Amino acid sequence: MRIPHLKIQEILLQKLLLLGFREAKAEMLSKTFMESSLDGVYSHGLNRFPRFHKNVKQGYVHPNAEPEKISSSANLEQWDGNLGPGIYNATRCMSRAMEIAGDAGIGCVALSNTNHWMRGGTYGWQAAENGFIGICWTNTAPNMVAWGSKSALLGNNPLVIAIPREEGHVVLDMAMSQYSYGRMHTLEINNKMLEFPGGLDHSGHLTRDPAIIMETEKAIPMGFWKGSALSIVLDMLAAILSSGKATHSIGMESEEYRLSQVFIAIHTQWLDPKLRDATINDIIRNIHTAEPAKEGDRTYYPGERILLTRKENLKSGIPVNKDIWNTILNL
Amino acid sequence: MRIPHLKIQEILLQKLLLLGFREAKAEMLSKTFMESSLDGVYSHGLNRFPRFHKNVKQGYVHPNAEPEKISSSANLEQWDGNLGPGIYNATRCMSRAMEIAGDAGIGCVALSNTNHWMRGGTYGWQAAENGFIGICWTNTAPNMVAWGSKSALLGNNPLVIAIPREEGHVVLDMAMSQYSYGRMHTLEINNKMLEFPGGLDHSGHLTRDPAIIMETEKAIPMGFWKGSALSIVLDMLAAILSSGKATHSIGMESEEYRLSQVFIAIHTQWLDPKLRDATINDIIRNIHTAEPAKEGDRTYYPGERILLTRKENLKSGIPVNKDIWNTILNL
Repeated sequence: MRIPHLKIQEILLQKLLLLGFREAKAEMLSKTFMESSLDGVYSHGLNRFPRFHKNVKQGYVHPNAEPEKISSSANLEQWDGNLGPGIYNATRCMSRAMEIAGDAGIGCVALSNTNHWMRGGTYGWQAAENGFIGICWTNTAPNMVAWGSKSALLGNNPLVIAIPREEGHVVLDMAMSQYSYGRMHTLEINNKMLEFPGGLDHSGHLTRDPAIIMETEKAIPMGFWKGSALSIVLDMLAAILSSGKATHSIGMESEEYRLSQVFIAIHTQWLDPKLRDATINDIIRNIHTAEPAKEGDRTYYPGERILLTRKENLKSGIPVNKDIWNTILNL
Repeated sequence: MRIPHLKIQEILLQKLLLLGFREAKAEMLSKTFMESSLDGVYSHGLNRFPRFHKNVKQGYVHPNAEPEKISSSANLEQWDGNLGPGIYNATRCMSRAMEIAGDAGIGCVALSNTNHWMRGGTYGWQAAENGFIGICWTNTAPNMVAWGSKSALLGNNPLVIAIPREEGHVVLDMAMSQYSYGRMHTLEINNKMLEFPGGLDHSGHLTRDPAIIMETEKAIPMGFWKGSALSIVLDMLAAILSSGKATHSIGMESEEYRLSQVFIAIHTQWLDPKLRDATINDIIRNIHTAEPAKEGDRTYYPGERILLTRKENLKSGIPVNKDIWNTILNL
């Protein structure tokens, strides 16, 4: 079934108000959850809403907590999320990084004690919409194998890099695991194998079977040793810059919360806009003219397919899983 | 054969002086080339010196050119490398980024018209030795497949992230391709297959045969679509922030030069040093206690093995390929 995006947003708003969120915050959260589904990132939009709702009820997410600045050194700031909603805290911190960058050229805000930011791309689009380059990442609970080991003790620590562009922003939104659990779950339901190994089986061997990886919870890093190394340094940077928790420490909690995040904004207004756009468009043209691997294939720039999905979902409504929709209606 | 590190540095210094480098610059370059080999990165140390020498003679590298600031917006600066030696330009720009970050918390220098920086890790170690977090990357000539295509039209665009630490810095130095051509060449010589697919064969299929990939020059990105996307955004950022050339444009030149690079430094002195080190050490301890995939395996943090190699090579001399050494002596 497909439901108009504004209808979805309205229902989510009602549910958030019932949970005790104040109006402005409930509006922002309902819009962001809706937009993730609108852009086709269903796993961190509507499909995640029931768990978010539960986390509020359980007391992991404090509805009306406000993030606050706890320390700073010129254009670097540390903020404490005070366990407020992850979307709200992350949006506030990217705004603050842009505010700093507006004057200083580049600004950095590190955030501790926050909750899951849902779709990382949200904060990349936010920066790009405002004309800034945005770079941000979060740590997570342990959910990915450290290469060379059988243990899933690293986070998949999603990294977002966004570049503003007149004809459509370039937004990379990428977890460090080769496949997301969301993607593996979808393939499992459809009884399909992964194209490449995506995790370890019960004996610690690589497997393409998503059902087995959902059992072992041992996703492997993208590029094996490379994604593993990148995950480690992103966790270190997030934890030390925010004076917050690192992945192993988050793993000792009963729920994935008290996360650490970093938001960097870079001012682009000083760049000659014509040269900037010409450079980006040349890079994109080059990608688009690549000889396809298989007939009918195409090569896309990061974020390109999002815009196609957004257009389609704005026109025809957002595809919604009936069970999840009913769950939300009954919250 | 093994040669003492200072002997190597002395020979390189002589050759650089003969090439027309002034003394201070020749000393810096010879030291950096030596240190890359000392740390075990032979492909970008001694083994690369003959090509660097040739590039100077061909006029691609201008020995005594100086980089200059061409534009700035507060703590963001654009520098033109004026085709000076890549090592010199990159070291100068990381220094400048640290200078900015010392006052501003975070500083960013983007560099155009530079030459190959050799080993990217050099500038990560440089930042960490000075107590800064260093993040830098370069674009390259096209040498890696764009995922979804048969064409090697992306750069492998190495990314470096360094974090200072009392007991040994954490330094990630990582190209976007699954394997470097240097690594594949070594395996080819030893008649070995890659553990995982590393490139495309002549029909555009994935292959583990390094000899074939050396022929097609079609290395694949780490994590397939993921490394491809990361390469694209790193190229865009380097080219637009420096107002320099992007990978496709570098590919139109007769040699890999006129590269674009970005250097970001973040001040860490404002962080409580005890908390900072405790957090990093906890993350490392967690990695070290991971259950190994195979008996006898270990899990390392990025940069850890460099320190072991450095210690060994300082003690026993740097392992040197006899042919390459003779080539250098005869330059």
